[in-house]
Parts: sequence; structure tokens; C-alpha cells
Amino acid sequence: MTVSPFDHPLLSGLLGDEEAARHFSVEADIAAMLAFERALAQAEADCGIIPQEAAAAIVKAIALFRPDTGELRAGVTRDGVVVPELVRQIKLAVGEPHGGSVHFGATSQDVIDTSLVLRLKSVVEHLGLLLTETIIRLVSLEDRFGGRALTGMTRMQAAIPIKVADRVNAWRAPLQRHQERLSQQSARLLVVQFGGAAGTLEKLRDQGPAIRAGLAAKLGLADASQWHSQRDALADFASWLSLVTGSLGKFGQDIALLAQGGADIALSGGGGSSAMPHKQNPVNAEALVALARFNATQLSGMHQALVHEQERSGAAWTLEWLLLPQMVVATAASLRLAAELAARIESLGH
Amino acid sequence: MTVSPFDHPLLSGLLGDEEAARHFSVEADIAAMLAFERALAQAEADCGIIPQEAAAAIVKAIALFRPDTGELRAGVTRDGVVVPELVRQIKLAVGEPHGGSVHFGATSQDVIDTSLVLRLKSVVEHLGLLLTETIIRLVSLEDRFGGRALTGMTRMQAAIPIKVADRVNAWRAPLQRHQERLSQQSARLLVVQFGGAAGTLEKLRDQGPAIRAGLAAKLGLADASQWHSQRDALADFASWLSLVTGSLGKFGQDIALLAQGGADIALSGGGGSSAMPHKQNPVNAEALVALARFNATQLSGMHQALVHEQERSGAAWTLEWLLLPQMVVATAASLRLAAELAARIESLGH
Amino acid sequence: MTVSPFDHPLLSGLLGDEEAARHFSVEADIAAMLAFERALAQAEADCGIIPQEAAAAIVKAIALFRPDTGELRAGVTRDGVVVPELVRQIKLAVGEPHGGSVHFGATSQDVIDTSLVLRLKSVVEHLGLLLTETIIRLVSLEDRFGGRALTGMTRMQAAIPIKVADRVNAWRAPLQRHQERLSQQSARLLVVQFGGAAGTLEKLRDQGPAIRAGLAAKLGLADASQWHSQRDALADFASWLSLVTGSLGKFGQDIALLAQGGADIALSGGGGSSAMPHKQNPVNAEALVALARFNATQLSGMHQALVHEQERSGAAWTLEWLLLPQMVVATAASLRLAAELAARIESLGH
Amino acid sequence: MTVSPFDHPLLSGLLGDEEAARHFSVEADIAAMLAFERALAQAEADCGIIPQEAAAAIVKAIALFRPDTGELRAGVTRDGVVVPELVRQIKLAVGEPHGGSVHFGATSQDVIDTSLVLRLKSVVEHLGLLLTETIIRLVSLEDRFGGRALTGMTRMQAAIPIKVADRVNAWRAPLQRHQERLSQQSARLLVVQFGGAAGTLEKLRDQGPAIRAGLAAKLGLADASQWHSQRDALADFASWLSLVTGSLGKFGQDIALLAQGGADIALSGGGGSSAMPHKQNPVNAEALVALARFNATQLSGMHQALVHEQERSGAAWTLEWLLLPQMVVATAASLRLAAELAARIESLGH
Repeated sequence: MTVSPFDHPLLSGLLGDEEAARHFSVEADIAAMLAFERALAQAEADCGIIPQEAAAAIVKAIALFRPDTGELRAGVTRDGVVVPELVRQIKLAVGEPHGGSVHFGATSQDVIDTSLVLRLKSVVEHLGLLLTETIIRLVSLEDRFGGRALTGMTRMQAAIPIKVADRVNAWRAPLQRHQERLSQQSARLLVVQFGGAAGTLEKLRDQGPAIRAGLAAKLGLADASQWHSQRDALADFASWLSLVTGSLGKFGQDIALLAQGGADIALSGGGGSSAMPHKQNPVNAEALVALARFNATQLSGMHQALVHEQERSGAAWTLEWLLLPQMVVATAASLRLAAELAARIESLGH
Repeated sequence: MTVSPFDHPLLSGLLGDEEAARHFSVEADIAAMLAFERALAQAEADCGIIPQEAAAAIVKAIALFRPDTGELRAGVTRDGVVVPELVRQIKLAVGEPHGGSVHFGATSQDVIDTSLVLRLKSVVEHLGLLLTETIIRLVSLEDRFGGRALTGMTRMQAAIPIKVADRVNAWRAPLQRHQERLSQQSARLLVVQFGGAAGTLEKLRDQGPAIRAGLAAKLGLADASQWHSQRDALADFASWLSLVTGSLGKFGQDIALLAQGGADIALSGGGGSSAMPHKQNPVNAEALVALARFNATQLSGMHQALVHEQERSGAAWTLEWLLLPQMVVATAASLRLAAELAARIESLGH
Repeated sequence: MTVSPFDHPLLSGLLGDEEAARHFSVEADIAAMLAFERALAQAEADCGIIPQEAAAAIVKAIALFRPDTGELRAGVTRDGVVVPELVRQIKLAVGEPHGGSVHFGATSQDVIDTSLVLRLKSVVEHLGLLLTETIIRLVSLEDRFGGRALTGMTRMQAAIPIKVADRVNAWRAPLQRHQERLSQQSARLLVVQFGGAAGTLEKLRDQGPAIRAGLAAKLGLADASQWHSQRDALADFASWLSLVTGSLGKFGQDIALLAQGGADIALSGGGGSSAMPHKQNPVNAEALVALARFNATQLSGMHQALVHEQERSGAAWTLEWLLLPQMVVATAASLRLAAELAARIESLGH
Repeated sequence: MTVSPFDHPLLSGLLGDEEAARHFSVEADIAAMLAFERALAQAEADCGIIPQEAAAAIVKAIALFRPDTGELRAGVTRDGVVVPELVRQIKLAVGEPHGGSVHFGATSQDVIDTSLVLRLKSVVEHLGLLLTETIIRLVSLEDRFGGRALTGMTRMQAAIPIKVADRVNAWRAPLQRHQERLSQQSARLLVVQFGGAAGTLEKLRDQGPAIRAGLAAKLGLADASQWHSQRDALADFASWLSLVTGSLGKFGQDIALLAQGGADIALSGGGGSSAMPHKQNPVNAEALVALARFNATQLSGMHQALVHEQERSGAAWTLEWLLLPQMVVATAASLRLAAELAARIESLGH
């Protein structure tokens, strides 16, 4: 099925990003969930909550584990989350006498949220690289054409002459602030989630905090108190994603308007038309606007999901799943398209 | 790739709908686009715009046509739309001397928008059936439990006793109004799009309207003037989708609140927990709330896309692709989940 | 206070509409609530639920009634709704022995929702007139310039020549469909709300439906079962408002783009700049785009409010109050600005 | 007019905040714009761009200046912004020979954006204080009841016992992160906007940066390059506002759900009902949910406004005016209501 253009075999060529999307495949999700269960067993063995032999058996079984995805799908349909069925399968793979040590003291949300954060860590790196690349392309534009004149346009009317550098700076400067923002918010985002059934780690006696710290360290995440009903770091990250695509949407809109006028820009490789072979459509520029408006739309839902009632809201949590992965891929695609578009500008200004 | 839960091998078991999603597969889209090109050739031959032999050759070639999807993907990346490359492939398949008659006088948007409407026609039927099914289940609830008492709850406080029938009616009555709305708006929605390069059918001499009428008739759609930059019927349909999921979200929220209290409802088949085997989570009910909030979120973007500049906005049009298919599947899933949920209510009221 | 531009003494000159805003003044709301209480007393006396003398006393007291708005404000702060305090004041004004017959069997939501619908009835008329006026202006544009040539623009690139009539039709045709939509949905929208404490009219014995019908007739509304937790007609009306502003946003965007190019349009009375006296800013056109995006934004919240739990959701209901009045005024302003803008077009096409 | 509840004489008692709203009055806006013009004249005189006598005359005239608001309103209607008419009035008040030195080298956007930032500086202080107050109230809740038991609720089902402290922490911890976020983003937000007609300060010779720095210093803002088409700091602030109301919406939802169950909370001062005098409606709690969903809705539009084309987008800029002030007041109201609600909790847990 291919309901979302980000998953669509044809449309994802324009609107998708393979590297970003890869982190939201079933394989990547399961791999991250298995990493959680493995690290948890090790951390619990380190603290004496489960036997070292149990941890070893779990690590060994997970290394060889292949899920029955048909059963996982049925599990989601039944339970709303994949974890109960996944844990059942892992326990079966571990077998007696150590199966009971799998997932000990944890709950579904610990696994799913930490799996998400683990993959967001890779996403943050990927987006950071794409952001740097786009900035470099814009700096190059300024180097090449910055000194030329451009007609400043205010309220869609010719105003006074500006320099190309002035316009390029308006595209680049926000991206640099986005780098700063990402750095500041990553510390709040890339943290482990571990709370057990209702957040109290009640099964781990007084070892809860130590196990959580060990789990975080093994996974390469920061340690933090459980945040299962506190979704602000995710909503804030979604805001950042939309800030990035919004800034790139302005870039795209500006390029499309320049291309409409025609005099002040030369673009290579515009899109073709089935009816008018003479046209060079600014496809990337338009896609940047579409992706900006897409993320601005999704963002509202991520903030609606902040009203996450009690210790766990199935409704608000599920809503995040419907929104955040697509925002990530939209942002990666937007950065990729912007870098390509900047590289296609053969002349700017006059 | 599985960025959207509607495309996700595991999550779509809960949140997706296979029948609705099927209409957004590449196969269904290409089949509908080929139906457009076939009907167009026939209608143009009927009006003497292309030779009857050309139409016959096109019909024959399309019957055997297998697209090169790798090239189609590259075409989307380059052109922003699949049609130029698809038409190139069809022309090649038709070969000389009739290749030039393929897609004659049409443009990409004609093909893509009409393909969408063709599939929405099936979607409207599917959703209509699901809606009827859900209404029947709610009527059955009223039949079984309508005369019992229920504590009326206003502003999340116990108010006065009501009947179960009063509550069930608040779930059912909006759905019946949605049936009426769908019937009224379908006449505006299920119409052909055919305008050529910029909407004027300039290549068809004085045969434009006749060909468009013939095309519509062959495709089972109503005839109408081109609406390539008038997206109100699609935005209105999106509003309808969100009305449906919103009404079902209220049903879901009410069930979840009843299940929390526990005394006034008995549900079979709730979801299991990985940490608390005793729990019966109202998974379907929560999913209904999530899907309602999802569609309410997406709807904003579909209305942003009404600002569709000039004769064709690449940006606004692309934005629709990112939103509408998922809204359709969310609505189908929501109707399916609601019908299931109603069927799981073993007791209501006291 | 002037937090909203629609209430702002300066900005409402551009973005507001006095006639539409008037229906959301405190005075208009209280007048409509008093009309409800008066009609209710009369309908209840007609059915013998309260004495005719009580109804006469209520009618007389309401005619002279002047609310203590300071106390009403305190009442809202305390109760979340104005009605308990308003009813207390009316009862005091009626005095013994008939005070107890005021608001008999009704609840706050009956008064507030019916007051809203009463005012929406006037709003619907006002918007209908503005819509007709805008359509007439566009027809006049077509009459004057329809036969001229215009450069068709697709994907922000020059395509092929079209007629001015083609472009004007793309502005006008959706507005005519909006007329049809409004007519269809008004029958569902302009209905009385009357249900009592939890929707059952439990205090009115078997006279509930008769009194509701009488109440509706006296107020000039259609009769319907209570819909206190079924908000689909309001969300659907909000969708209609956003459809209108979205279509006008396309008109505004097109005019701004034409004005940027400059060759194909002449506008009188553009806005001045504090820095560049030579400029003629297309202020109305830009405002149309802003209002379209505003309503598309608000619409999402109106659909979120469909998840209206149980018999009355204080949260979802309050959310409507924060959104719908501004959507109405934005739509009226947009229609007014569009009509003005059309009238300022002194030349179109070439 | 009172279209927005934040401006409404009655509803603002519940949903508004006088101190926050005060910063968006016409008086506050004009005062800030006059402060801009005064500081600009002084900074330009310091750098020798206008005569010291001109600056003195401007300062003197501004001290006595009373605008003709009727003309200002007409100016907005005509120009889309108030500044051209305001500057005309100031110039008239200054008179010859120094009138020409008023607003020298500046443009409307410099005045309006800097006026906004000046008032946001006060807003940030106000919100910071309210945030601290709310945190203190939550700390007090934890001090009083933290050790008691509460039924942990996951997916709207009873899970396992937690401590009241666990729940209160889930309300408080995000607020403390919001303090950190506000501190980080304030440095990017509270900066002067000064660019002249198209951002280049072309009239100020080589004194542009020095004058901008002087202007910023006199106004108590940080200096920064013009950001007239870079709206990321405002969109980011809007995200912060919605994060705050979202976290408080969770608090409100939790309290409403606790109040529904009834056993685990005692609240003083709930709202009354016009139909059921026995009820104690959790009015503040519901308002928190409504305000959270309101801001989550508005946020989408603020991010749509990031697509701010060219050197100045009348459409995107105007859209901000329609959204941001109300988000600020919603946030202040939400913080006020949350602090009140926390203070009304007389018992929590068991």
C-alpha cells in the first residue's frame, strides 16, 4: 500500500528521502526495540535484578531472533501496540528458564518511545548533515552572485534594488539559527524512556534509577526520569522540523517567483510538461512550498497530542505515530530538494 | 518504506483499511490513468479529432501496456508529475503512426485529477457502505439497550439519568446527516477534469465540450467545465471526511470514558498490556479519537491548498497529494473500527 | 482590549466587518438569549407547563431588563457560562411569584446554542448578500474584459494564452457552488437547541417536543431534536466559511501575482508605503490571502471540537467560542474586500 | 466589537488575561511605535544622519503627540499598515523644518515589528512570572499530598497505584523545561528590526549598522541584522506558547478526569449550572483543555506564515497579526487558570 507519498514508489522520488524513511521501516523499529530489550536485560543483570545467565540467554536469543510479522500485525490490531506480542515471541525464543526475565519491569511505552528516540538520534544526525549541506550551497550562491543587483520586492511589488547577497542571507541566516536550536533541544530529546507499568519502576525495588541509567548508557542516550505522559520534547522537535521546512518554503517560493519573472534567475533542469514541451517548471521550488505547508499542518496535531491524559493516553500517543515520522521525512526531503535547487541556480541577479 | 501508519505492515492492521488503501496504490492510479487515456482516444475519435485507427491502436496498446516504474519514478523526480513519462511510454507502446494521437490535447493535470476522481468514486461507495454498516450497528445497540438508564454526564460531572437511547442517538444522528451530506456533495465531486494545457482545450477546435462529455460518459463520471484551479469540491470532500471521523471520535471518547468508569459498559476483546495482563484497553475507542484528531489536523492543509494560484499551482496541488489519500484511509479505518467497537459492546447502561 | 484584529479599532478597518461583528457583540448575544427566554416562557404557557400570567410577567420583565454586566462577567469566570447568572438576574427582575417560571426546564447550553443559531441566521443572510455582490462584480469583470487575452500561467510559468473570461470564471464558479452549499446546509444549521439538563427535557412531562416546536417557531428557527453534543452542523458551517475564504484567497493571490507582473492589470487605489511613495501595494489582495490562511487554520480547531464527550463538553464547547465568531467575521471581511478589489480592477488582460 | 473571547467583556473574565491583553491595545502599540520613532531620531542624530535639533524637535513632539485614530483606521484600510498615516501625523506635529527627519530611512515593517518585539519583551516577563507562580503552586501540591496514593491510569484504565507526587511531577517537569526553552529562545526573539525600504538601510550611508545598534540599545533590545522576511523567531515563540498551553491542557484534562471519578480529588469553587444546582463543574480545568487546543490550532497558521515571500509579504505578515496576540493572551490566561486551579485543590489522592 502506498497511501502516503513518502511511501509511494513513484512520488517518493520527489517528495521522499530514503535515508530518513529507512529509520521508520518495520525493520528499523524492531531492531531498535530489540536493542532496548537486550540493553535492559544487561542493565538489570548488572544490578542483580535478573540473573547474568538470563541476560546472556536473552542477548543470544535476540541475536538470532526473527519476528513473525503476521502475528505482530495481529497483535497491533488487538492490543493497539506491537509490544505485548513481540515480547511474547522473544520470551518464546529465549525459552525456559529465562523467558520470564525478558522485558522485566518494563512496559510497552518504554520500548516504543525509546525505540523512537534511538532512531531520532540517527535522524538528528542525518538532518544536521543535510542542513549543513544546504547552508554550504547557499554560501556558495552568495560567493558566486552575492555582489550582483536584484530587484527588492515588497508586498509583491518592485521596491528598490538590493544585492543578491541580501536575498541569499534571508535564506541562509534562519538555517543557521535552526542549527543552534537543534543543538539546544537535542539534550532534551535524546533521552531514554523507562518507567514500567505506570512510571514508577515498581518492580525494580530500589534499583530503578540505576537500571535506567545503565539502559540509557548502553543505548547511547541520556538518562532522564520517565516522560511517558510529558510529550513536550517531541512536540518541540516537531516545531523545529516545521521551522526548517518553513524557512525552506520561503526559499522555494522566492525561487518560483524569480523563475516566473525570469530575468533574474537561470535554473538548470526544470521539470517538463506533458502538454507544453517548452516549459521548465520549478518543480523543486514548488515542492519546497508544499512540504512547508504540509509540516505546518501536521504540527498542529503534534501539539494537540500534548493533551496526553493520565499516565498514558492511547489516543494522544497514537496520534503522534500518525504525524511525526512523516514530518521527519518531509524535512529531510525538503533539505535535499533545497540543496539540489541551490545547485541548479546557474545565475542569480543582474 | 513505511513512514505512514496507513502503509505500515504492522500498524495498518489497526489504523488502516485495505480496501480504501487499495485505491491509492500505484497500480490503481496507473490503471485509472490508462482508463483516462483510452477513453480520451475513443472520445476524440468519435468526434473526428483523431483517426478511428489511432483510437483502436491506443486501446489495443493500453490493454497490453506494462509501465517501466523505474522510469516513472525518475519522471516524477524530474517533472513533479508522472504523466509526461507515462505518456512517453504509452506513445512508444502505440508506436508509429498513431503514437502522436495519445493524450492529444490533454495535460498532466487532466489525467491525474480525473484518475483521482475515478478512484474517489469507488471510495465514496466504500465509505457509504461502511457508514451504513456503522449506523446499523448503532441501531442494534439502541434496540438491545436503549431502554436502560445511563448517567447523563455534563462537563465531566454526573448530571441526571438519561436513557441509553439518548446517548446512542447522539452517536447515530450525525452519521445519518453525513449520509445526506455525501449525497449532496457527490454531484459536485464526481466530475471529469479536462482542460488541456491551460484549461481552454485549445487543440480540440470546437469539439472540446463534446469530447469532454464523451470522456466523462465513458468513465462513468459527470461532465463539467474544467476545475483545475478550483479545488473546492476536494476541500469540501475532505471536510466531509473529517466530519465523519469527528463524529466517530466522539463515539470513541464516550466509550473510553464509559470503560474508565466501568459500571455502565461491558466490552469484549479489549487490548492487552505488556506490563499488566489484567487490563482490557479500549484500543478501538482510543484509535477513533486519534483518527478524528488526525483528520481535523489534515483538513487545515486541504483548505490551505484552496489558494491555488493561476491556472495550475504545483505547490498547492502537491500539498493535496500529501493529505487527501491519508484522510480517506483514516475515515475508512475509523468507520471499520467504530462498527467493530459497537459490535463488541456486550452491555450498556444499567 | 483589542487582542484580535477583528476587534481592533484600527486593524478592523481592513480586516473586519462591522455588520458581521455586530452579531457577536455582548448586546446581540444578550438580546438573543432574552429572546430565547421570552419565547420559551410563551411556548411553555401555551402548553400549560407554566401559567399564562407567569409568561406575561416574564415577557414584561424582559422588555425592561437591563443586565448587570459586571455580575455577568463574574458569573462567566465562576461558572464558565453566562447563563446561571443571567437567569438569576432575570428571575430577580420578574420577581415573585413568577420568577421560578423563568428558564423552566432549560439549561445553559440551550440558551447559548440557540442564541448562536439565531445570530447565525442573520449572519447567513449577510454572507449570502455579500456573496451575491461579489459574484456580480466578477460577472461585470467578465463582461468588461472577458474577451481579452491573458497569459495562462501553470506552475508559475507562462503557458499558453487564455481569455480573461477563463480566469474570471475560475474565480466566480466556486462562489456559485458555495451558494448552493450554503442553501443545502442551512436546513441543518438553523435549528433550535432545546434539551434541558442532559437532553431529555425531563421536566416538561410529555410536552417536551411540543414546547420545543413552539419555541422554534417563535424564534423563526426550524425544529429539531437536541444536538447539544452533536456539533457537526457548526463544523460543517465552519468548513463552508473556509471554502469561501479559500476561493477568495485564490482570487487575491492571482491579483497580487498579476499586479507583480504589472502588464496585464491596472488597479486603482493601492496601498501606500511609508518608505516608497511610488508603490501601489495590492493590500486587499494580500488581505484575501491572509484571511484564507486564517480560516484554514481555524477550521482545524472547529473539527477538533467535534470530539465533544458525553452530554456536554465544557472543553470542546468553549473551543468553538474561541474560533467560530472570528471565522464568520473573516469571511464577511473577505467577501467585502473581494468585491472592493474587483471594483478596483480598471483593466485586465491585453 | 467583541468577536474574540479575549476581547469580550464577559468571556474574557474566564478566558482572557488583562495584563497580557494590555500589550496589544492600540495605546500600547502606538506608544511602542512612538518609542521607536523617538529612539530612531536620537540614534540618527548621534550618528550625524539628522541634525540634533531635528531629534530634539521629534522627541518633544512625540511627548505631546495624540494620534487621530479615525485617520489611522482609514490609513490601515488604505495602506494595509498604520505606519504611513501615523508618520504623516507625526511629521505634521513636528512641523517644519524637522518633519522630514521623522522616520528617516525606516519603513513600516521596522516600526511594526520592533513595536511588537518591545511588547513581547514585557510579555515574556509576564509569562515568566506566571510560569514561576504555577510551578510554585504545583510544588506546593506535591508538598501537601505527594506521599499519598493515586490510581495510576493508563489508556483510560486503572493500572497500578502510583504516588500523587508522580502525577504532580508530570505536570510540573514540562513547565520547568519551558522555562529553559524560553530563556534560550529569548536571545533570538528580543531583537530590533531595522532595515529600511527593502532591508539595506540604503539611506543611511555607512551609518546603518551603528544607527541600528543605537536604536536597539535605546529600546532595550538586542541588536541584529534585519529579519523582516525571516519569521522563525516569531514562529518559534508561538511554538513555545503552544507547548506551555499544551502542558497545562494535560493538567486540566487530568483534573477533569479526577473530578469525574470524584474519589481522589476535592476542589473548591467549581462552576454552577443553570439546570442542576448540585453540580460543581471543573470550569478552569476544561478551559485549560480548550486553550491548549486553541493554541495548537493557531500554531499551524504561524508556521504557514514562515513562507514569507521576497523582501516583505503582506499576506504572511498580516496572518501573524491575526494569530500571535491571541496565542499570547491564551497562554497567559492558561497559566493564570492553572495556578488558580492548583490552589483550589483541597485534597488529592487517598
